[in-house]
Amino acid sequence: MSVIEELSRVLEARRNADPEQSYVASLYADGLNRILEKVGEEATETVIAAKDVDGDHGQEALIGETADLWFHSMVMLVHLGIPPEAVLEELRRRFGLSGITEKASRGTGAS
Amino acid sequence: MSVIEELSRVLEARRNADPEQSYVASLYADGLNRILEKVGEEATETVIAAKDVDGDHGQEALIGETADLWFHSMVMLVHLGIPPEAVLEELRRRFGLSGITEKASRGTGAS
Amino acid sequence: MSVIEELSRVLEARRNADPEQSYVASLYADGLNRILEKVGEEATETVIAAKDVDGDHGQEALIGETADLWFHSMVMLVHLGIPPEAVLEELRRRFGLSGITEKASRGTGAS
Amino acid sequence: MSVIEELSRVLEARRNADPEQSYVASLYADGLNRILEKVGEEATETVIAAKDVDGDHGQEALIGETADLWFHSMVMLVHLGIPPEAVLEELRRRFGLSGITEKASRGTGAS
Repeated sequence: MSVIEELSRVLEARRNADPEQSYVASLYADGLNRILEKVGEEATETVIAAKDVDGDHGQEALIGETADLWFHSMVMLVHLGIPPEAVLEELRRRFGLSGITEKASRGTGAS
Repeated sequence: MSVIEELSRVLEARRNADPEQSYVASLYADGLNRILEKVGEEATETVIAAKDVDGDHGQEALIGETADLWFHSMVMLVHLGIPPEAVLEELRRRFGLSGITEKASRGTGAS
Repeated sequence: MSVIEELSRVLEARRNADPEQSYVASLYADGLNRILEKVGEEATETVIAAKDVDGDHGQEALIGETADLWFHSMVMLVHLGIPPEAVLEELRRRFGLSGITEKASRGTGAS
Repeated sequence: MSVIEELSRVLEARRNADPEQSYVASLYADGLNRILEKVGEEATETVIAAKDVDGDHGQEALIGETADLWFHSMVMLVHLGIPPEAVLEELRRRFGLSGITEKASRGTGAS
């Protein structure tokens, strides 16, 4: 299973978690607007971090901000009942990728 | 190989493509600021599309905008010499995921 | 009358203009989502331009992007039936400013 | 003096204030990246608030978010040594506005 698929399951499972115990559950409890604010924040922080990359310097920070951006956009999708793997399907479709692994892991590649 | 890894290789290969023939190559040629403008644009369009989801209605549009957002953030990383898989590694590390498939596909899971 | 007030009246008057003849009228015709995309785009371009300021270099570009941001947020307000001067009132209230000129120009400063 | 001009002077004066005592001074002390994060955050909150306007409902919230956006973009300009009135000049120039008041208040409209 790919990281995105595995993380999708974690995010799905957190829908029943205690908001006091789980950051993700607290985002679900706060609601869509709060989650979207985070998506916007992380996009801005990604842009700023990218402008601060100078050779090797700043690469780790940009990787971290991009991870925050992807993560919060996955939280957004799960909150709205959309499996994040649908984004991978869309990318696969657009670019004519095989993505054999993920198809198989969803049990749809029987023969 | 996962979709993200496969797409990363496509984006890497397009660094040598003709900007007149390839959208990705034209983004690389336009430079970092243009790529970051696209990241910001797609983040805003994602937020707007999420606000427009109403039950099943609007889910496809949101999936498409999120795909645009991830795609352009991958273009940003490749333009700066960072492999997008580094974002997957970061997510795996943060969430204690196994991510067996991707490790294996990189030939690092020997034993 | 201040620039913001004068521009507000221009934007109000364009509500009846031909979208083929007026950029502002074409934004109104495209609708709220298109206007908000522009607000998001200009915010990102402002952030990028601010990162590119280096002493005197880049100041003009940043002034232009900020003007675009304020302008499109005014178009947004007018599209939603809100006078942009309400933002000035809010700023005046928060900061305890007098703003005598604008009060007077709205005919509320009778004596 | 217009609200924007009056607020510009307040923001200029806060450059020498104690960051412990003044929110604006704390932003200057945190530096450009923190200020730009706020610009991005407020732009996203403006977009979300605009999507939530429904007739009269939500107008006050949108006015508040737009005030936050303009305010933080003014803080950005002052931090970079640019007078926010330069944005008004740019808008006046683009739209052929008179802006008599502000010209006069800067003592440049002698006759």
